[in-house]
Parts: sequence; structure tokens; C-alpha cells
Amino acid sequence: MIIVMQAEATAAQISEVEGALQTWGYEIHPIYGVERTVIAAVGAPTQDEARVSEQVESLPAVERAVLILKPYRFASKEYRPEKSVVKVGDVVIGGEGFVMMAGPCTVESEEQLMETARAVKAAGATVLRGGAYKPSTSPYSFQGMGEDGLKLLAQAREETGLPVITEVMHVGNIDLVCKYADILQIGTRNMQNYDLLIEVGKVKKPVMLKRGMSSKIEEWLQAAEYIIKGGNEAVMLCERGVRTFETYTRNTLDISAVLAVRELSHLPIVVDPSQGTGKSSMVPAMCKAALVVGADGLLVEVHPNPEKALKDGAQSITIPAFQTLMQEMAVIASAIGKKL
Amino acid sequence: MIIVMQAEATAAQISEVEGALQTWGYEIHPIYGVERTVIAAVGAPTQDEARVSEQVESLPAVERAVLILKPYRFASKEYRPEKSVVKVGDVVIGGEGFVMMAGPCTVESEEQLMETARAVKAAGATVLRGGAYKPSTSPYSFQGMGEDGLKLLAQAREETGLPVITEVMHVGNIDLVCKYADILQIGTRNMQNYDLLIEVGKVKKPVMLKRGMSSKIEEWLQAAEYIIKGGNEAVMLCERGVRTFETYTRNTLDISAVLAVRELSHLPIVVDPSQGTGKSSMVPAMCKAALVVGADGLLVEVHPNPEKALKDGAQSITIPAFQTLMQEMAVIASAIGKKL
Amino acid sequence: MIIVMQAEATAAQISEVEGALQTWGYEIHPIYGVERTVIAAVGAPTQDEARVSEQVESLPAVERAVLILKPYRFASKEYRPEKSVVKVGDVVIGGEGFVMMAGPCTVESEEQLMETARAVKAAGATVLRGGAYKPSTSPYSFQGMGEDGLKLLAQAREETGLPVITEVMHVGNIDLVCKYADILQIGTRNMQNYDLLIEVGKVKKPVMLKRGMSSKIEEWLQAAEYIIKGGNEAVMLCERGVRTFETYTRNTLDISAVLAVRELSHLPIVVDPSQGTGKSSMVPAMCKAALVVGADGLLVEVHPNPEKALKDGAQSITIPAFQTLMQEMAVIASAIGKKL
Amino acid sequence: MIIVMQAEATAAQISEVEGALQTWGYEIHPIYGVERTVIAAVGAPTQDEARVSEQVESLPAVERAVLILKPYRFASKEYRPEKSVVKVGDVVIGGEGFVMMAGPCTVESEEQLMETARAVKAAGATVLRGGAYKPSTSPYSFQGMGEDGLKLLAQAREETGLPVITEVMHVGNIDLVCKYADILQIGTRNMQNYDLLIEVGKVKKPVMLKRGMSSKIEEWLQAAEYIIKGGNEAVMLCERGVRTFETYTRNTLDISAVLAVRELSHLPIVVDPSQGTGKSSMVPAMCKAALVVGADGLLVEVHPNPEKALKDGAQSITIPAFQTLMQEMAVIASAIGKKL
Repeated sequence: MIIVMQAEATAAQISEVEGALQTWGYEIHPIYGVERTVIAAVGAPTQDEARVSEQVESLPAVERAVLILKPYRFASKEYRPEKSVVKVGDVVIGGEGFVMMAGPCTVESEEQLMETARAVKAAGATVLRGGAYKPSTSPYSFQGMGEDGLKLLAQAREETGLPVITEVMHVGNIDLVCKYADILQIGTRNMQNYDLLIEVGKVKKPVMLKRGMSSKIEEWLQAAEYIIKGGNEAVMLCERGVRTFETYTRNTLDISAVLAVRELSHLPIVVDPSQGTGKSSMVPAMCKAALVVGADGLLVEVHPNPEKALKDGAQSITIPAFQTLMQEMAVIASAIGKKL
Repeated sequence: MIIVMQAEATAAQISEVEGALQTWGYEIHPIYGVERTVIAAVGAPTQDEARVSEQVESLPAVERAVLILKPYRFASKEYRPEKSVVKVGDVVIGGEGFVMMAGPCTVESEEQLMETARAVKAAGATVLRGGAYKPSTSPYSFQGMGEDGLKLLAQAREETGLPVITEVMHVGNIDLVCKYADILQIGTRNMQNYDLLIEVGKVKKPVMLKRGMSSKIEEWLQAAEYIIKGGNEAVMLCERGVRTFETYTRNTLDISAVLAVRELSHLPIVVDPSQGTGKSSMVPAMCKAALVVGADGLLVEVHPNPEKALKDGAQSITIPAFQTLMQEMAVIASAIGKKL
Repeated sequence: MIIVMQAEATAAQISEVEGALQTWGYEIHPIYGVERTVIAAVGAPTQDEARVSEQVESLPAVERAVLILKPYRFASKEYRPEKSVVKVGDVVIGGEGFVMMAGPCTVESEEQLMETARAVKAAGATVLRGGAYKPSTSPYSFQGMGEDGLKLLAQAREETGLPVITEVMHVGNIDLVCKYADILQIGTRNMQNYDLLIEVGKVKKPVMLKRGMSSKIEEWLQAAEYIIKGGNEAVMLCERGVRTFETYTRNTLDISAVLAVRELSHLPIVVDPSQGTGKSSMVPAMCKAALVVGADGLLVEVHPNPEKALKDGAQSITIPAFQTLMQEMAVIASAIGKKL
Repeated sequence: MIIVMQAEATAAQISEVEGALQTWGYEIHPIYGVERTVIAAVGAPTQDEARVSEQVESLPAVERAVLILKPYRFASKEYRPEKSVVKVGDVVIGGEGFVMMAGPCTVESEEQLMETARAVKAAGATVLRGGAYKPSTSPYSFQGMGEDGLKLLAQAREETGLPVITEVMHVGNIDLVCKYADILQIGTRNMQNYDLLIEVGKVKKPVMLKRGMSSKIEEWLQAAEYIIKGGNEAVMLCERGVRTFETYTRNTLDISAVLAVRELSHLPIVVDPSQGTGKSSMVPAMCKAALVVGADGLLVEVHPNPEKALKDGAQSITIPAFQTLMQEMAVIASAIGKKL
């Protein structure tokens, strides 16, 4: 941590800060520049620095405290330089292959789910997605089928052999969701729902953590840290677009986040272009972008009749569109030596 | 709802959309313009429009669906044109007066809380704030004292007579928090934690709903709608800054949100300049801004020793600063005919 | 245009709005719904609607005016459904091929420029980029070599045969830049410098218009409209990242903007991953993303010694990195049937 | 400047960075921590640091360079600790008083301007605002009356005695605008139009620099630095709202920017709530907020018939509303000891 004193800081104020830093266990290295005194503080336990830095910034004549170390540990590349993999049955996320997770936004009926599950399996998807509990901005929107939806997902797994990823929205139904699902998804609105993070940290199922709607990558990795610190190392991240001033797309899908996560962390990262753009017309192209930048997989919404979907039809692609997409993806994957 | 067809829409596609709208219960009014056909759809239940509009946008040749009605009902000014008031003992929020809620960001010790409580009471605050459960970006930050903190808050109320507002972070401890608190606070990260909203909708305590970090005012009112629809009408809103590209302040405190809420809703609205700016140097001035634009109150972090605070010291003002603030606020309040 | 009246609008107020619309030349279609009156206004000249809608919104009891038609004409896909191409000598931008524009951020010396120009040409670039006038946030940063830089660019074209793209920063040096350059670039900070747009609209050189740092796609197309309306149809767009709350990358490169432009306009679109990410480590992957989503080309900063660059070294890739990139791009281009 | 080396930096890489820093004229203080080496670099000319830091970040094994000193000098509070004042005739901006600048968004006719000028003068305004050249997102919007508008402004000054502020949009008409105006306004879209900044730096008229739509306060002060460095010290700033995801208001007016500017700079700062909110209903309240947080003045759009305004009618207040506002402002100003 580097503490920058204000230009007008007195010797006594500088001493006070130095004393405080030593009390917190730091070794101090003051540098008396022409216009500013700067104090480098090294050697104390790093996880507390975010907190300590706030306190330091409250001391008189301190301009600001600059954190040098990352505010997360287990999620960092420094903790584990090689990539992590998450395994779900035969499916490996974060390895050499590229994993296609597909299915309806929301489970609506047995017919809708089974038709979609069979189709995406046939086209090459290896994980089935589908929501049983749906967070909705409006209390009047469809909120999902609940446990009935989970049962249908389990039935679809039974038939197709595809492991299932589905969202868990609150602590109270973690056990229930675990009973049916293979991967737990934490949605964008819950990225900083800390109790939920802590509780899924105790579970023996992989977790996919979506990026918060306006979360910095650093905050996202700190959210992952909550889960890993709790004991669950099987964490993967999912970029799903961030909120900007642009209104033509539902969100702005930050493809470079895949690269940022690679530079900072060992965790697998997948991309959700359905939520990320909100427009089915954009989904196939953004899938290809995710593939070529090196994402570990995709989460794609597919619906047999998007115009009849109870939720998010505008961003779901049809089954034929998914089949075409898989063929086009295969060509690119093959060209870049990636296994789809 | 207005449906805008694409320029190249065929007569058959227009008919299909018209048919679908009638199936959903709408009366339709097509307008065949020179460059576009537009279909006005009126008369169907309004709460479902958000969902229906998504489905309409998935139909072939539809460019977009424009919602005319507000996507919330109970929270709207149209539902209740006059302002609502929330009562907590003798304190009235949303009435003629201006309510000062003050106290430490986080309860740290009996001494810290009691000293602050006595001081803010003496200076004129009428509600005591203090966190027992603290959401933190880092899992290594101080997470609050939990029930011990709640007990101290109750003790402070006992002595000072100030009703207590404190955050409830998850469904599992609503009952516990209700046992000690007078007003439940939903934090910015939980504004779209729908299970929490639904559950506090069943409680017989007032709820203060903070604006999500990157929430539009419309989404904020939809979140309030969850609570009111659940049966709890004692909802007040709290503007606490939104996330922007600016880094000098912690957030960008949107003072105009007070006015927007007044134009759209009957719910009381208070302002939190401590979270909103992240800088104690800015808190007093922003308190005055909130007062003159017509907010119903403030939520201010006060700490006996901000530089020793376990959390958010940089945004807490000292007790003397709070005393000065109250005097300065009183002068302005008196000038504008508001009772502090 | 659709005018939404307030719920409490009186018959007289509705009549007043109807009258005003007719005065502006609209044919009106009022729809009297249960909760609202909505007036559809059709048939008047569309280009003025942005202005008229502002005036309508100032009338009593008007809630809002919703524009149905696009606020640009010549830049729209409706005006020209097929893609436009921009030709510069043998280079065609917007056609079947994919155009690589590469070179230093800023021209620094004959040696630096010539070395880079030869190398990018050898590796397959077909346009040479290089700044002679550099907009800089700080007045103390390097501002470019000016006309000497332009002369060096012309010399590099002479030797390599590569046409030159360079930025024009103000009206006063359009003539000078035109003397040396083949394509004029309008930078992000000048996207809404209307005098500059109007003046380059009079020039007989292609123009590349970068997206403003926080510009919506609609505003970007309106800026292009200024140029085309002025008489210069040889306009191409360049996505270069938008400003968000994320600080790890310099900007957030909006890859989906390529798709949005395709859906709304006929203009060619290229991508600048160097400015878009600010990180050389991310440039190659983002180049590939731009290729697979269907951009018409790229603008890439290449420097023989990025760590010695006078400007933006952190986002420039080395010559060997560019060579590798071109080989990798060729593989993908070939797989998707695109000619590099 | 503090250079943070990557965790895996070798001794040779650290030496290379140290050598480079010494070449640039820095005295170096390396600190070898447990997990990182950090190098403090002091003593070199500070204005170049932004540029040098970019180059340092391009060196191998450098994680990042942290600037300690402000990237502007003449605009900083450290350069001039006491507040600056800008004088225009008898009007002092930045002194003890609070300056009301009011008038139409755009000059439309003699009648409209004179009526407004007389009314705002009578109500207590001391500067007349009005646009003769108007930047417009759409090329089809009204672009202002040009020199005829300037002449009318001069005529209004003649009659009312109010000095005139008006926008200068490009270098080519600085002389013309100077002939008629007392204060030159640089609009939000031109905040980083560097040629314009450089040229108004040579002029002997005060300049009001509006904040860029998505500009950080630091960048805004760097833009002001361009003008002051050019020789014109009579610079004042104008907060006019920033772009966020919120769509209910036209911009998000950042009232805390007034405080930020006070903490960082000596320059006067005024607030424009008309552009800042885009809603006349919000203007009066936001004016009061600007007053109580300590702004030096306001820029308010007033129109005799907002619904007939050729531009921005929705954000213009009527003459009676302005009169009421001035009375209400006077009460508050008097309460806080400020002279209106």
C-alpha cells in the first residue's frame, strides 16, 4: 500500500500516519519528494488492506491510499498460475475444449423443454441450461415454474444425458436446487448477494457466477473469492454484458472481459450473448467472438418458438438457428485448433 | 402499448401481429403511415405489458414495442396522487417535516454506538442508523457484529428514545432484525434481490429501499412495487448515488432523483450523501442540497473517530461536524418553511 | 411520432396538442385509451421530428413524444438497403474483403515510420495509419509532428504503395491534411464537432468517423449524416470503445456495435482494438473478434519499440506480434470465407 | 510516480526500469516488498508524467504506474490556494456573490430575446445568456441565427446593461463572437476540441468551459489547463450533467462536482440545471441545490413561450417561473449569507 500525503501535510501529521501504519503491522518506507511525501507500507497481511486503506484515508492530511496488491487471493492468477478446470461428469470447463451450454431461458413446459433439450444435444451442446426460478424486474412478469421446472430439467438430463445448469436465487432453496441441478448459476442481480455466495461456498456443486450489471472485474473476482474462501473451488465466471448509456442493445457485452479474467485469474470463463445483447439477431456473431478470444464456453438461450416464449423471447434463437450456429462454430473452432 | 412495424413488413405480417394482440386481449388501432405501420394496442391488463411487449418484439417484422403505461402500479403517483407518509413512533417520514437519520455506518462497540447515539439525538436527529450486518465487496472486510450489534442498537433506542433503522441482508434474518429494528433497510446490492423484497413485503415494519448502484428510477419503483404488492405499504426510497465513470467520488449522488421520484410516485424519499459521495468533506453540502430540493430526510454516517472506524471512515463525519451541520441545516430549513 | 398525454390531460389540452400537430403538417390519429390518450401523428417531413418532438413535449399535459422514424436518413439502411463500399485506390472497404489498416499511433520519426510501414505492408496490411496531429487530454503530452508528420506519411506511401489514413483535428488544417492523406479520420473527441463534420462533408476524400466516447449508435449515425448530407458519401465508421465504469481496460470495446451498425446502416464499419482496450495484450484477440462478427476491417497500432513510443505505447503491438496476428487472422478468415 | 512491478519481475527487469526512470530525470527509491517490488520515482518535471507513465507501462514486467501528482498545474489549488475571480464589467464570478446568468437557450428573434432579457434583468439576473450558434445532434435541427443572433445579443446588452455569454463553436468564428460577446462559452461537445481550447487561450475574454458529457473532473481540469497555459487565466467551469444509464432525465446533474472542483482547483464553478436535467420541472429545485452547495452561479434557460421554442423548450422555464425562482433563491441566499 502506498499512502500519498497532501501537499500541505506537516511533519507531525506524517508521523501520525507512520505510527498508525506500524501499529497495523506494516514496515514503512517514507519518500520525501519535492511536492509530496509518499509512504510505502509493506509486509502486513494483504487481505485486510482494503479495510485498512479506508481507515488510513480518514487520517488527517492523507490524500489517498493506493492498493498495490490485488484485493483477492484464491481467485488470483498469482495464487494459481495455471488455469483451473471445472468438471461436471464428462464435461470439462476450462480445459482444451469449448463448452456449449444451451437451452431455454425459462422452463415453460415439458414439451418445450424436451424438444429443446433433444435438439441442442443433437446439435452438439454438452450442458443443458434452463431457468426454474427467474429474477424479473417486474413483479408481474413470469417468475418461473419453481420445483416443477427443476423436475423437468432432471427429466431432460435423464433422457439426454446432458448435465443441467440452473439459477439459484436465494439461500432458502439451495438444497432444493442442488437436488436437481449439476451446476448452480448465480445471476447478475445476485453477484453481491453475499449470503448466497457464502452458502454456495459450502456446497459440493460447481457454481457459475455471472458478472454484476455494473461490476468491475475486480469486484467480480472478489465475489468469486467469497465462494472459494468458503470451500468451493469449482467456480466459473460468466460475462453477460454490462450496463452502459447505449439503449439499442439490452446490455453492452464486454468481450474483452474474457481477456481481463485470463490476465488476472485462473478461473474458467464463459460468455452469455443472449443476455449480453438482448437481441437474437446478434447472438450467433457474438458466440463466434467469444470463441476466438479464448472463452471456455457459451451460455445460449434457445427456444422452439421464441415469439411464444414466456420470457426473453427476443433474445432466444430458434432451433434451426442453433444448428447453423454449431456448424459455423465448428468450422472456426477447427481452424483455431479448439475442440468444440 | 404501441407496436412499430418494420418498414418492409408485409400485410400478412401486420395481420399476424394484430391477431396476436387481440388474443392477448387488446383492442387494436392500426395506423398506416407513409413509411411505417404502427399499431396502438389498448385495453388489456397493464401489469402484464412488460412481458407481453417482449413477446410481441419476437414476432416477425416487429421493430419494437413502446410501453405507454408505467410498469408499476401501487408505487405510482397515478395510483395515489397525494404523498404517502411512513410513521415510526412519533417520527413521520414524508410529511411536512424533514427527518434526520444519523449514526455510525457500522455498530462497532457499545461505547462507539452510545456516544454517537447520544450526540446525534442531542443535535436533533430523530432516527438512529447503524449497521449490524454489513455487505462488503471483500470477504476479508469487517462484516458487522450481527445480533450483538442489533442488541446494542436496541439498547441505544432504550436510552435515547430514537427509533432504529438497520439493514437486513437476507431472508433468513428478517425475523431477527425485526425483533430489534424499527425500520428495515434494503441495501443497494439487494435492490433486485427479489426474495428479500417479497419477504419484507410480508412484514409489519417500514422498509427503506436503497436505489441499486446502476438502477434506473423505473426499476427502483418496480422493486418497491414488489414490496407493496406483497402487502407492506410502508415503503420509503433512498437515493445513495449511482455508478458512473467518475472516480473522484465513490458514486455520483443523483440529487435530481428526488425530483424524479416526486414526479412519478407518492413514496417518501430520503438521501444518503455518505454512501453517495464517499467523502466526509462533501457530506454537509450534499445534505443541504437534499433539503432544498425537497427530500423527506437524510441518512448520514457519523462516527466519534472516523479514522478509527472499522468501515467507511472516509465518508463518516465527526460529531462536531454533525452538530455544525444541524445548525446550518436549521437555518436553511427555517428559511424555506420546512421543519427540521 | 406518437404523443402520450398525461393521465390527467383535459379535452381542451388534447385539442391544443392536436391543433399544434396539424399546424406542423401532421395528419393525426388520436386513440382514446382507458388510462391515457395517445395521438399518432403521421405524414410530415421526418427530418424535423427531433426538433418538433421537443416542442411538443413542452406543451401542457404532454407526457412524452416517441419518435417512430430514425433521426437520420442518408446513413440509414432504409435509404440504401445494400452495403456501401468506400474505395481508396485498389483498396475496397465494405466489400467482400477485410481491410487491415496498421501503423504507429503517432508518427515520431522517419526511421520509426518507415520501419513500421515496410513491416506492416510485408505482413499484409493494405492501409497505413499514423497520426500527425494528436489530440491529448494533457496539454503537456506530445501533440504530434504536424506537417512534418504528414510529409513522412506521404513518403511512406510513396515507398510502400499503401494509402494513408490520418486524423484531421480541425477545420483549419483540412486542406493541408487532404494534400497528403488518402482517408481523413475524425477522432472520438470530435465526433460531435459539427463544423468539422460539415467541412469534411465538402471534401473529395473518404472519411472515417470514430464513435464518440459516450455516444449512442443513433448519435453516431446522426454525426455521419452531417457528412453525407454535406455531399461526401464516402463515410466509414470506426468503433473504438466506449466509456464505462470499468477501469482495467482503457475503454470497453463494444464489439456488438458492428452488428448494430449493420442492422441500421449501409456504411462500412471497422474496429480499433488498440484504443478500444488500451492494452497491447488484448489487441490480437479483439482483432479476431472483429473479424468473425463481420467488421469490414481493423485499425491497429503497431510500433517497432512500444516502450519507447512517445504516445500510447501500452496499446501498440510490436512488429513480430503483428506478423503473428496476420497469420492467425488469415487462418480464421480462410475458414469463414473472408478474404484478408 | 510509483511503478508497481509484476510479481514475477526479475532483477534484470527491475534494473531496466530503474535505468529508464533515471534517464527521464527521476531520482529512484525502490522498495522490495514480499510480493512485489515498487519503485518510487521523484524529482522530474511533473507535467510530462502522464506521457512518461505511459511509456513506463510499456516496459517489460511493469504492472502499472501510479501518478502521484495532479496532471494539471495552473488549474490546481496547489498552484493558487485562494479562489480565482473572473470579472466582467461589474459582475464578479467566483467572489462572495452568486451570479445568475439567464436567457433563452437560443436566440430566435428580436422580440423573443428582448422580452426575455428585460424580464431576467428585472428579476435580478446579472448576465444574459443566449445561443447564436447551436451544436445539434441532428443536422436537421435548428442551428442558430449566427451573426444575426450575436447582433441581437449585443443589442440586448445595450438596452439592459447585462453582459452577454454565448457559445463559440469553432476556431473560425472566435473573432466574430469576441466582437459581440463578453464571455465565451465552450460547449460540452467541445470540451476536448483542443484547437478551440488553444485558440480561446489567446483571447482577452473570459471563457466558461462546460464539462464534457462523460468527462472525469480530472480531464475537465486538464482541458482548462489548455486555456490557462495558452495565456488566458479568466476561466470558469460549468457543470452541466453527465451521461449515465438513466433515461428519465436528459443527463445526470452532478451537484457534487461543485465540491470536487472546490477541492482540486481555484477556478469558479457554475451549474447549468437546464441542460443538466432536460426538464423545466426540475430546474428551480436544482438551482437551489447549486446555491447551497456553494456554486458561484447558475446558467438558466428562460423562454417567454417554451412550447414555441425552436430548441430545448422542454428544459426552459417561463418568465414567471424565473421570477418566482429568484424570489425563492433570495430567501435561501440571505439565510446562508450569500449575496444574490
